[in-house]
Amino acid sequence: MTEPRYTPLVASLPSTVPFVGPETQERIREAEFDARLGANENVFGPSPRAIRAMKIATPDIWKYGDPENFDLKQALAAHHQISPENIVVGEGIDGLLGYLVRMLIEPGDAVVTSLGGYPTFSFHVRGYGGDLVEVPYKGDYEDPVALIEKAGEVGAKLIYLANPDNPMGTSHPQSVISAVIDAVPEGALLVLDEAYIEFAPEGTAPGFDVSRDNVIRFRTFSKAYGMAGARVGYGIAAAGLVQSFDKIRNHFGMNRVAQAGALEALADQKYLSQTLGLVAKARVRIGQIAAANGLTVVPSSTNFVAIDCGADGAFAKRVLAALLARSVFIRMPFVAPHDRCIRLSAGTQTDLDLFEQALPLALTEARS
Amino acid sequence: MTEPRYTPLVASLPSTVPFVGPETQERIREAEFDARLGANENVFGPSPRAIRAMKIATPDIWKYGDPENFDLKQALAAHHQISPENIVVGEGIDGLLGYLVRMLIEPGDAVVTSLGGYPTFSFHVRGYGGDLVEVPYKGDYEDPVALIEKAGEVGAKLIYLANPDNPMGTSHPQSVISAVIDAVPEGALLVLDEAYIEFAPEGTAPGFDVSRDNVIRFRTFSKAYGMAGARVGYGIAAAGLVQSFDKIRNHFGMNRVAQAGALEALADQKYLSQTLGLVAKARVRIGQIAAANGLTVVPSSTNFVAIDCGADGAFAKRVLAALLARSVFIRMPFVAPHDRCIRLSAGTQTDLDLFEQALPLALTEARS
Repeated sequence: MTEPRYTPLVASLPSTVPFVGPETQERIREAEFDARLGANENVFGPSPRAIRAMKIATPDIWKYGDPENFDLKQALAAHHQISPENIVVGEGIDGLLGYLVRMLIEPGDAVVTSLGGYPTFSFHVRGYGGDLVEVPYKGDYEDPVALIEKAGEVGAKLIYLANPDNPMGTSHPQSVISAVIDAVPEGALLVLDEAYIEFAPEGTAPGFDVSRDNVIRFRTFSKAYGMAGARVGYGIAAAGLVQSFDKIRNHFGMNRVAQAGALEALADQKYLSQTLGLVAKARVRIGQIAAANGLTVVPSSTNFVAIDCGADGAFAKRVLAALLARSVFIRMPFVAPHDRCIRLSAGTQTDLDLFEQALPLALTEARS
Repeated sequence: MTEPRYTPLVASLPSTVPFVGPETQERIREAEFDARLGANENVFGPSPRAIRAMKIATPDIWKYGDPENFDLKQALAAHHQISPENIVVGEGIDGLLGYLVRMLIEPGDAVVTSLGGYPTFSFHVRGYGGDLVEVPYKGDYEDPVALIEKAGEVGAKLIYLANPDNPMGTSHPQSVISAVIDAVPEGALLVLDEAYIEFAPEGTAPGFDVSRDNVIRFRTFSKAYGMAGARVGYGIAAAGLVQSFDKIRNHFGMNRVAQAGALEALADQKYLSQTLGLVAKARVRIGQIAAANGLTVVPSSTNFVAIDCGADGAFAKRVLAALLARSVFIRMPFVAPHDRCIRLSAGTQTDLDLFEQALPLALTEARS
């Protein structure tokens, strides 16, 4: 008996994990966090209508979900005023990114992303052996011009751009994004991750042009719709690219109850507006808490805010540790200079009360 | 603008789908089926305790599921008397099969399976460019001796064996399976798919020996536990192989509510026994209905039964079409000589009443 004969690529991969979950930390500290603000989740949760739809659908979970996601695609098509043939539904954006990378990337293929950008995209690219070329941010913003330039230079097959960005929360207006789309080099596909788009100001997302073969845009029910644990994301692209997912995707991979929940969440746009209002208020309050402690925030177009702790990564790490110790779960960007910041989600009033109490103590502790 | 630059492998793949879902057929006929017996689902559904646990967990769906599946792995470890480090939890066996094939198979690698065996495994193998070598069944049974022999001959990296089998429902006793495990050729990994094992007679599954590097066994909450739409499966293997999944799996791919449901479903073994009793009764009744129509059944160790229609595939196809037209959703095996059969799940009393009424009419129609 010997080890299985892994492919050379898989044998060479590290056993890294894009993120450590809060539950892992809770098991280590032997207590749940009082405020869960670190995983870019939406604490305001899904629409009560969506919750109700999921509860009603639960006894039917003995049935596989519809592998075509027909009803959800119809509803999304109507919502976005596009055709269902331009929509692929999958197990969260993470799942769809995995499929997309698999379709295009072989060992040695170049992929351009931002240094310090979304780790799960990079995880997939490395997992398929792609050569990840990382372009620095410009300040706290992804740098679209540099991304496009670099993509042309290295002949990238994929260019990843999150707008709004994760982990910094900044965004570019639609004029910039439209210019990026126009400038995608021949042979490259732009992956425009709009997971947080609903939180962004009007005029952040350009209109859909599904005649373009070289752009795929991703949206999700995990963020503004408050359903991260359901795993429902979707991509919008030219029909040919959408169809290609059928060659490889896990056709019966969708949770049936999640399908029902997403459908109802989408229908309840009133609740969505309400959530966006709550998030906007919470963002303001996070800014006020930061200011009261002599700190500034990075302007956010998402449901999380990066607070500049005013020093280096080691300092922010100490602030973070002190907050965790006070039962406030947050995270921080991985890469300098962004790791000068801590990052937390727009929380409930109770969450932010806790944070407000804990932050000055954490700063004192970090400074001492 | 041009088509995305797919890998040559993906460009060469057909857009086939392993199975067409019942919903697709329902949309075409513009009516739901009255009996849903074709998708190897378990009509008796999950434990009421599991349903309750899922409903309770639903408002928390704004949180991502625990990427480590810690609680479920602990419970499964206790249930099977093995260690959690020997368990990988994933998005159904289908999802886990995809990860496994990805880890081992490159274009040109040989994989041995049965001709007419589980299509989704073959879908994944083709999707990663594996050379699928298909060994004929021996009658209505997968042929373990021939599978092992062929694997040695072609230097297979993977050998797939479902016990009990899908689509025929037959099984081999543990003595045969143990002998297969002992005979796995050097360099091959045996994929023992036990999705239906709970329905099989005592003495079908050998004990777990996780010291073996060359076997991985798959189990699921989709079948006996009645949760197909939840997407929770697991693999049991040596710790090294289990850890390797972490290199590539979608760490945040599990539905949080499904995790909670599986945990409670596992805890309710009393309900499981009850289901097994209902399934056994339904199998007997399907046999009686077949006999009353002059037909025989293939002995089943699962929750579905293949009925031998006594003629060729074209005839069985006509029987199937006539049943579908009478609102009874069933399927049939794809490959001769198994395509002489139609196949249906152990249904509720109402389901089988419908089937009992429809079958003689369908047979008459098929014969005319």
